[in-house]
Amino acid sequence: MSPSAAASAATPIAPFQEVEHQRAVFPEGLMLDCGVRIAPVAVAWRAYGKLNAARSNAILVCHALTADQYLAEPHPLTGKEGWWQNIVGPGKPFDTDRYHVICTNVLGGCMGSTGPRDEMTDAATKRGLGRPWGTDFPNITIRDMVRAQKLLTDSLGIERLLAVVGGSMGGMQALEWAATYPDSVFAAAPVATAAHHSAQNIAFHEVGRAAIHSDPAWRNGRYWETGTVPARGLSVARMVAHITYLSEKALARKFGRRLRGASAVTLLEDVFEVQSYLRHQGSTFVRRFDANSYLTITRAMDYFDLAAEHGGDLSAAFRGTKTRFFLASFSSDWLFPTEESRAVVRALNRAAANVGFVEITTDKGHDAFLLEEPDFHRALGGFLAGCAARVGV
Amino acid sequence: MSPSAAASAATPIAPFQEVEHQRAVFPEGLMLDCGVRIAPVAVAWRAYGKLNAARSNAILVCHALTADQYLAEPHPLTGKEGWWQNIVGPGKPFDTDRYHVICTNVLGGCMGSTGPRDEMTDAATKRGLGRPWGTDFPNITIRDMVRAQKLLTDSLGIERLLAVVGGSMGGMQALEWAATYPDSVFAAAPVATAAHHSAQNIAFHEVGRAAIHSDPAWRNGRYWETGTVPARGLSVARMVAHITYLSEKALARKFGRRLRGASAVTLLEDVFEVQSYLRHQGSTFVRRFDANSYLTITRAMDYFDLAAEHGGDLSAAFRGTKTRFFLASFSSDWLFPTEESRAVVRALNRAAANVGFVEITTDKGHDAFLLEEPDFHRALGGFLAGCAARVGV
Repeated sequence: MSPSAAASAATPIAPFQEVEHQRAVFPEGLMLDCGVRIAPVAVAWRAYGKLNAARSNAILVCHALTADQYLAEPHPLTGKEGWWQNIVGPGKPFDTDRYHVICTNVLGGCMGSTGPRDEMTDAATKRGLGRPWGTDFPNITIRDMVRAQKLLTDSLGIERLLAVVGGSMGGMQALEWAATYPDSVFAAAPVATAAHHSAQNIAFHEVGRAAIHSDPAWRNGRYWETGTVPARGLSVARMVAHITYLSEKALARKFGRRLRGASAVTLLEDVFEVQSYLRHQGSTFVRRFDANSYLTITRAMDYFDLAAEHGGDLSAAFRGTKTRFFLASFSSDWLFPTEESRAVVRALNRAAANVGFVEITTDKGHDAFLLEEPDFHRALGGFLAGCAARVGV
Repeated sequence: MSPSAAASAATPIAPFQEVEHQRAVFPEGLMLDCGVRIAPVAVAWRAYGKLNAARSNAILVCHALTADQYLAEPHPLTGKEGWWQNIVGPGKPFDTDRYHVICTNVLGGCMGSTGPRDEMTDAATKRGLGRPWGTDFPNITIRDMVRAQKLLTDSLGIERLLAVVGGSMGGMQALEWAATYPDSVFAAAPVATAAHHSAQNIAFHEVGRAAIHSDPAWRNGRYWETGTVPARGLSVARMVAHITYLSEKALARKFGRRLRGASAVTLLEDVFEVQSYLRHQGSTFVRRFDANSYLTITRAMDYFDLAAEHGGDLSAAFRGTKTRFFLASFSSDWLFPTEESRAVVRALNRAAANVGFVEITTDKGHDAFLLEEPDFHRALGGFLAGCAARVGV
């Protein structure tokens, strides 16, 4: 990336907090599914545990919609524990004494990988054009995200990943890795995910995008010109998404009293209740997440349809695969219901693939893949250890 | 209602369209559950079919969140067919050759019954205070809505309704009628409803309210001062609610192509797609519905908990009841799932009540209660005819 681009990519768009991220920059960039080339392209990443001499112990973890590469360490903006720190570390299912665990910020994101907040570049000259991509950022696909990750693993000299693992949108990437680079993935563990986004999930994303588009501060995506962000729209988008991540029981536990306890006598008293919730939900999120990245990434999820990429037959995506698969779903997850994991398992069976599947009984909803679920952690850790033994790690 | 109040209640808040509604005004008003008295109180209503001499053939239909009293005739604002016109009319399940079918606009609404858009009044003097209630409108409950309806039916000399029928929030009112005025209800048919609002349903309402609160045009509820409405917030609220009314299959049928078909190359192209959807969804809605009414009515739904009104035992709400009950749910309704109707049926059984229940198999979701569902219409029509025969109508 040209110095000017690097410089402007580091220019904060208040109140978005900017920090320096570890990243690799690829001058030739990437040709996207939409036919546009982005060059240069940057991939921000973090790794935990040592890459062995044979480079055979690398596990790529793919993050979900609003997560990032800070997998197993405090987040540089929020200070919160890494989003999978509960299972990544010495002696944990992702045993960093044994594995080299890599996590990248997805293409289109806002934590160091090339995205709408970065300076727009001319692919021919690779020069910065003096303003952010904003809504001119090309539409990307889950496969484009995977291609960017492949640029990084290639640059690290990793010919074959021991495993690609991810939940939700991360699971979409794990499926896409196995379909696009079968020889580069010994094992794949798509968790709480699906081979395409349902109409209902798309519709909920549409609500979030509509809320962002409806915020006057969004200014048709050119909010960076005024140094503001569509905080209210982004907060509402976060709020509706948050609901879909939880089961009815989890919602009742988490918000039941707050939602029903008030003894307000007029509407305005409720206003403050809701606004305080918005402040709480939105304030940290809008400081760490860019609205145009949210639009870009939700759109990539909505257009994901692995079967469609293979003539409408999902099993064709895995024909002849040697990759070992492990899928997990959660019984109370209504965003990515078990039935959608089963559809992937059936397709893998039709491809005579090596596949294991477990449905974890829990009342925590979609979020369960991030939470304390010992059965899930034992099953996933066992799968990784078994694959490591096969490879001789 | 004082002339001044009547006048200002007819003052349009652009772009809300105002029309004259048939209504009854009760000077003494109503004491609400929140302890506030509203006086005077107006109840807007429509009726279809002739009330017989014995006044024994009256059926009260209660409407859902965004519907109104225009049950079986073209809507005065939208020109669309009445919301239950498919089953209310001569020879239809609600046979207007046989029954006198009444529908009122709910208290807190914006189609003629007293609500936030009406002029604030002083209950002691019954004088208008020269400005709309807005967010000073007292919080109302489903039971308050029912009390307002009772004022009307009493004024019509109807001692006992042949039946009270409603879907969704209308079903909450039907349950409340049977619990609060058991001797005034020969039969009750709560459809696609529940005895309390689930945490998930409350949370989705919170998103809608947050979207309205986040629209700068809402101006803390005082948008009437500037003659504007929070159209964008109200549109987003309508959009999220709309999704919850449909099943995954119905969504795929209705929006599938629109949501996925676009081949946009940059985000901005999607913007227009979404904004056109918003315009389409929102434009008619914001012209016919008041934002503060939306806040008032959704809140009433969220606080509805019939068991809590009766010491935590739902069956206590129906102890000793002579009312005949008929409940119906729809298999793909995830907003008011069959399980919630079953919970009501179990409570009625514990009260040794006369109750019938049917789950209709359909893929249309919650909206099914409004659509062409011949099995549902036959069952409901049969129940009404059976009750009429019992009463001798």
